[in-house]
Amino acid sequence: MNGQLRDGRVEIGGNARQQFYDARGYGTPMGGNAIRVSRVEAAHLLFRGDLDSVDGEDDRLDFQAFFLDSASAVDRFALQFLVYAELRDRGFYLSPAREGWPGDDGSEWTDLTVYPRGTKPGDGEPAHRIVVRGERTSIPASDLKGVTLAVVDEESEITYLETGTPEFDGATSYGPPDSLVGSLIDDRVVVWDAPEGFYEHGFYGQPLTAREAIVDNAVQLSLVEAAGLAAEGHLSLSDENRPAVEAIRDRGRAVEGERFDRRLAVYRALRDRQVVPKTGYKFGADFRTYNTVESVDELPHSECLVRVVGPDHEFNPRELSLDVRLAGGVRKRMVFALTGANGTVEWLTVSRLTP
Amino acid sequence: MNGQLRDGRVEIGGNARQQFYDARGYGTPMGGNAIRVSRVEAAHLLFRGDLDSVDGEDDRLDFQAFFLDSASAVDRFALQFLVYAELRDRGFYLSPAREGWPGDDGSEWTDLTVYPRGTKPGDGEPAHRIVVRGERTSIPASDLKGVTLAVVDEESEITYLETGTPEFDGATSYGPPDSLVGSLIDDRVVVWDAPEGFYEHGFYGQPLTAREAIVDNAVQLSLVEAAGLAAEGHLSLSDENRPAVEAIRDRGRAVEGERFDRRLAVYRALRDRQVVPKTGYKFGADFRTYNTVESVDELPHSECLVRVVGPDHEFNPRELSLDVRLAGGVRKRMVFALTGANGTVEWLTVSRLTP
Repeated sequence: MNGQLRDGRVEIGGNARQQFYDARGYGTPMGGNAIRVSRVEAAHLLFRGDLDSVDGEDDRLDFQAFFLDSASAVDRFALQFLVYAELRDRGFYLSPAREGWPGDDGSEWTDLTVYPRGTKPGDGEPAHRIVVRGERTSIPASDLKGVTLAVVDEESEITYLETGTPEFDGATSYGPPDSLVGSLIDDRVVVWDAPEGFYEHGFYGQPLTAREAIVDNAVQLSLVEAAGLAAEGHLSLSDENRPAVEAIRDRGRAVEGERFDRRLAVYRALRDRQVVPKTGYKFGADFRTYNTVESVDELPHSECLVRVVGPDHEFNPRELSLDVRLAGGVRKRMVFALTGANGTVEWLTVSRLTP
Repeated sequence: MNGQLRDGRVEIGGNARQQFYDARGYGTPMGGNAIRVSRVEAAHLLFRGDLDSVDGEDDRLDFQAFFLDSASAVDRFALQFLVYAELRDRGFYLSPAREGWPGDDGSEWTDLTVYPRGTKPGDGEPAHRIVVRGERTSIPASDLKGVTLAVVDEESEITYLETGTPEFDGATSYGPPDSLVGSLIDDRVVVWDAPEGFYEHGFYGQPLTAREAIVDNAVQLSLVEAAGLAAEGHLSLSDENRPAVEAIRDRGRAVEGERFDRRLAVYRALRDRQVVPKTGYKFGADFRTYNTVESVDELPHSECLVRVVGPDHEFNPRELSLDVRLAGGVRKRMVFALTGANGTVEWLTVSRLTP
């Protein structure tokens, strides 16, 4: 069977409607038995041998020639073809997210609409709205919401990522006392005489202790922990005339820049939800989080890794892959906290998906 | 017992030589039974209660007062104390890497010299030369060689990293033919008619195929694979008048900038060693490597993750932690390829260490 390239789409006559549209969900009907398919669909029909050739402006094109012609005519054609072919291979029906095709949501950046297995284009809600990107293209956070991202890496392997909103079911009930006094030492704060439970139940800081030591209730706080406590009125500083929160925040800004303010906003937002944020340093993240700490001796598995980014953050797919892979490997959810300079936080989970 | 602070060191009389130097490796002898200890050592003796106080210029200082005084006098004092105390707790003898102390190697950036368990300062070779850094300080690659890095994170937990030189025992014997022809399509190259073994034994590229497809010997190459093959004279491009290597390299530079040249240099250096580099995208790295590929059907575990950086790269400890943690989690060595603009490559492994 043969198709005709016209205005960037391929028209197929014969019994195409029955064979390709009705039976397998390619294209849109044109009237009679003819259908119109996108270049990606046409390339796939050629790839499978269902279509023998496509007549272009001057030539009759086989799969290879049509593929090359399309790659020069359509942005990201090869990437879209690879994703389309893989999803077809996995048993899905899917259609280009373009005007006139079923499931088109009018979104500028969606590339493919995938239907649940066993259903055809237009029957019910799509299973995935796919955005196809090469690994070298950075992706604004706002483009990630509500879509499935298919990243094609440099060797043409595809990774699917989906986004969502995390649930923080915090139930850590410890409340710190209002009378803590600390010393600001470089980029940490030492509370020399911490009350019982401060570390054990609140999971604040880290004890300064050792096998044999005369000091047994000193707790070292990170700057972000200390600033959080000071902002809530729980902590003051010895040898410091200014309010503790100012002195600590200034130190934080001196060592981290404006990132400190964003991290503090996220830290406080999590503590507000009764979630315990601790450093995510070992995982290369800002925080790891515990929904419910009753005692440090019986610490639960931490549920999330949190990375703090700006509200207009653009994800580099390779860095995103690293974060999501690491989080998956340690059975945690990867959460991005999109944090404005004014302290508003929007939460976004990103996880791998096998369609 | 009591010490006297003098010129930034603490002198201890009484039977200090016997009690602290001979028996436990603190300080250096001064003549008679007196010894001189560093501020870090003195703080540790106070911390343990072995020393009751230190006489400063005006005051008699207890542990807390001496700690605060030292933190304002000595760069990174709190960090050095934390590492010193933890290593003592783990049963090591160690001394400040300073002139007059045993094991001093004259290095400006080493902080502590650690002796093998059961041996005292000055007896034989050190087990570790420790550089102490906070997680917020970036670390030039050149400072990492031959030392153990102790990174103190914001919550005062310590991670030890050691560096080394990787061994690439490459034994992949496949040699590609000289007659490959490909099409340059965006940021990849398709060889439409790849010879048998090219993918299966050479592990070049990725087949363009599917369950039902008329195409069964097309292989997609990444730009770096294609440029490597073109540079060795194995690959030419159809529809291209310039030498293939130029056209592919220009495309690589267009999508990746000068990083492409560095990645290509590393790719070629690995293939030269009969090691197969494949994309490390899923691990957020540049490459994963296989020493010996006989057949893709029986692919061995890949041994290393490689990240390509400049020769003067400065490591951000948090990013380094992420890389090393991920590599450890997937049982691979993390390798940094310090690559100059002229293509010279210096290799550096970084791994976690429990002293």
